Amino acid sequence: MESAVQERSGRTALRRMLVGAALVAIPAAVVVVVLGLGSAYAPVASTGAKAAGGGPDTYARLLVALPVILGACHLAGVLARRLGQPAVIGEIVAGILLGPSLFGIVWPAAFGWLFPGGVVSAINILSQLGLIFFMYLVGAEIDLDAVRRRGFTAVTVSQVSIALPMVCGIVLALGMYPAFGGDVGFLAFGLFIAVSMSVTAFPVLARILTDRGIAKTPLGALALTCAAVDDVAAWCLLAVVVAVSQGGTPSEVFLTVGLTLVFVVAMIYVVKPLLAKVLARVPESAVLAILLGGIMLSALATNEIGIHAIFGAFLFGVIAPRKDPVVARAAGKLGSVTLTLLLPLFFAYTGLHTEFSLLGSGSLWLWTVLITAVAVFAKWAGSTTAARLTGVGWRESLSLGALMNCRGLTELVVLNVGLQLKVISPAVFAMLVIMTLVSTIATAPALTLISRFKTRPPVQRRRKVDRTP
Amino acid sequence: MESAVQERSGRTALRRMLVGAALVAIPAAVVVVVLGLGSAYAPVASTGAKAAGGGPDTYARLLVALPVILGACHLAGVLARRLGQPAVIGEIVAGILLGPSLFGIVWPAAFGWLFPGGVVSAINILSQLGLIFFMYLVGAEIDLDAVRRRGFTAVTVSQVSIALPMVCGIVLALGMYPAFGGDVGFLAFGLFIAVSMSVTAFPVLARILTDRGIAKTPLGALALTCAAVDDVAAWCLLAVVVAVSQGGTPSEVFLTVGLTLVFVVAMIYVVKPLLAKVLARVPESAVLAILLGGIMLSALATNEIGIHAIFGAFLFGVIAPRKDPVVARAAGKLGSVTLTLLLPLFFAYTGLHTEFSLLGSGSLWLWTVLITAVAVFAKWAGSTTAARLTGVGWRESLSLGALMNCRGLTELVVLNVGLQLKVISPAVFAMLVIMTLVSTIATAPALTLISRFKTRPPVQRRRKVDRTP
Repeated sequence: MESAVQERSGRTALRRMLVGAALVAIPAAVVVVVLGLGSAYAPVASTGAKAAGGGPDTYARLLVALPVILGACHLAGVLARRLGQPAVIGEIVAGILLGPSLFGIVWPAAFGWLFPGGVVSAINILSQLGLIFFMYLVGAEIDLDAVRRRGFTAVTVSQVSIALPMVCGIVLALGMYPAFGGDVGFLAFGLFIAVSMSVTAFPVLARILTDRGIAKTPLGALALTCAAVDDVAAWCLLAVVVAVSQGGTPSEVFLTVGLTLVFVVAMIYVVKPLLAKVLARVPESAVLAILLGGIMLSALATNEIGIHAIFGAFLFGVIAPRKDPVVARAAGKLGSVTLTLLLPLFFAYTGLHTEFSLLGSGSLWLWTVLITAVAVFAKWAGSTTAARLTGVGWRESLSLGALMNCRGLTELVVLNVGLQLKVISPAVFAMLVIMTLVSTIATAPALTLISRFKTRPPVQRRRKVDRTP
Repeated sequence: MESAVQERSGRTALRRMLVGAALVAIPAAVVVVVLGLGSAYAPVASTGAKAAGGGPDTYARLLVALPVILGACHLAGVLARRLGQPAVIGEIVAGILLGPSLFGIVWPAAFGWLFPGGVVSAINILSQLGLIFFMYLVGAEIDLDAVRRRGFTAVTVSQVSIALPMVCGIVLALGMYPAFGGDVGFLAFGLFIAVSMSVTAFPVLARILTDRGIAKTPLGALALTCAAVDDVAAWCLLAVVVAVSQGGTPSEVFLTVGLTLVFVVAMIYVVKPLLAKVLARVPESAVLAILLGGIMLSALATNEIGIHAIFGAFLFGVIAPRKDPVVARAAGKLGSVTLTLLLPLFFAYTGLHTEFSLLGSGSLWLWTVLITAVAVFAKWAGSTTAARLTGVGWRESLSLGALMNCRGLTELVVLNVGLQLKVISPAVFAMLVIMTLVSTIATAPALTLISRFKTRPPVQRRRKVDRTP
């Protein structure tokens, strides 16, 4: 087009000048008229009009804070990938560094300027919305049919890989409770520590497996299935913790559990078929609106029942008709915006609540090391032993143990729920964040290390792992 | 797959039972152990843990309010389409009905419950973010090359269609100022009324033209080009109004105008080529993050300069490389979420600030009728006359006048800026909202009406309109 224009450049230039003149002259004339009228009519014009805007300060500050968070998280994500880690590790670390643990210490004035109360509460709201959208996406990714198909091995491995860390967590909680329990009952505190030991991050694991190109191998498929079961189990157990810590009396807890069961049954047997029918009939423009409404209403339902809002969103993801291409497309759009804009805000929100300075004394750091060691060991031992006992080869079993230790984002969600409910103190939160980071970061190097041990022929192992159709 | 499973239903059923048993038995055993330990260790378990959560009430209420707003806006949009109106009209009306004008009067208790302060401020933040994302999309849709190609006719029509309403608006403002001016200078007030008369909504117009299948006709192309010029002109004029109402002294206004020019030049000659280069190089996952960051930083820049944040976002849309398919895809994702989730919140936000009860007395309603009449007449007369004078046929000229009266969403954005800056009072805001609704709703019926007058052969007219290549 540029060359065609140049042929007639003379005429075009003239026309452009005319257009330009018309563009400027007419409004200019009007403005002059208005200014004339204005000054004639009201000689005191534009005084006292200075007191403008009802608190646009928070909004302006948010327009600084959001790009800073976005930029920091994405750059850190790129850096993490360069270091052979999943991007999410970089994003989590960036969020923590933006919080009081680094940025707040190094430059307190800038920290206070960037994150005043209004901005923090805006980040809070946005990250909570982002979290339920993310939980929907996680739910929609979990393929319960695969669990059914893979059967006994996967379920046993994942259950043992939950049970052993939970028992170890309880033992650990017995030691921690006198120092860190506060006025929380041991039941809630112990259960929470137990759950936090047993988490595996399904979405992060999926990304590690895809990055390494082993998602489709027998080991990858087994790990993914185990992680899916672990994820569902973790949310169920966390729901129990929330119910226990929220409803004081046993009858209240019983009511919460009963209502949860009713809700789950209603979602699977009433909402699921209804939703599939409705989504197949409405125009594409309405699909995203229905998904968004459904996510929020499901989240509201579980929030009102007394377990956390995230369960409703997760369950809605599980029952949504993921195979419908229109739904998948709408979910993809929501996913992009959630992962790009809202999830970094969740990391920043987490970082703003993480204060490593609370671990000032040496004994707290010792506790952190102990917690991390127990968490890593219990998860690893549980997964490896169970896999070995169900007939999986040694190397695959060890790799599976390494993979199941990837706690990533799921653990952060769990920890934030615990902090919100005040089941754990900010100091314990900081310890568990460190445990999360260490065990997630260790996943990729551990896998590389294990893959160097080539002791057995691969054929035999593969047959054993992949024995279900 | 279902049939394949049924063949081996016996084995599968057994396996499912085993899986189910493992799924239940292991966690149940752990929970029993924990409960036992818990009650042995701390018999006062789970008392005092009731005081949970730092104000999750706003969050829970938001999970009700957002689906209500989403549902109401989308249903009203569908209804509007059935009535031959663009969906956005229904969405705007739904937003207003959810505000104090109807819902607040009919059921004040429910209104207060659904929209407490925290929810309103959350809606505020979300809708302001939605607004700048929307302004980006509007900017990205405007094709300045088409304006250049269509040249003199389009620019003249659009400039006259701005100038006449502005002059009429000033005259109107002279009459309104004593009653409604408050302590705002006449310059700001008069200019604002003038701008609000002259607005045409480019995005709504585009949708009306597409709905009627006339977007590609000469009339449609001309109307779209005029509306694009009008849109740009409206934002420029509004920037002047904001600068005038914000900066008290002439030197301050001069500084604002100068900084704006520097910003625009920098965006076009520095940021635009740089952005195109960067976006072509980075991986697709980073494109959306860069766009989001760019939108927010541009919005921040214009906000700090002293014109409104929306200009920066709009300008960023104009300079973004829209023809890059990766950028277009990222913008499409952002667009879906913005239009589905955030724009209804903007309508609700507008509705929450619209109080028709402020127009209690008869004289205010008379003013409303007068404002509406002047706005519709001036825009129509200006567009029609200018089009006729540049050689467009009568029927097309009248249709163009009808189309340019479509004020829709753009006018609401302008009005909200005026209300935020306190250039207009809530009562004037309500009047102008009614004017917006009436003139936008009138567009489609007026077009239908005009199309019934078939007085001249279409060939001659078409040649005249489409005379630029």
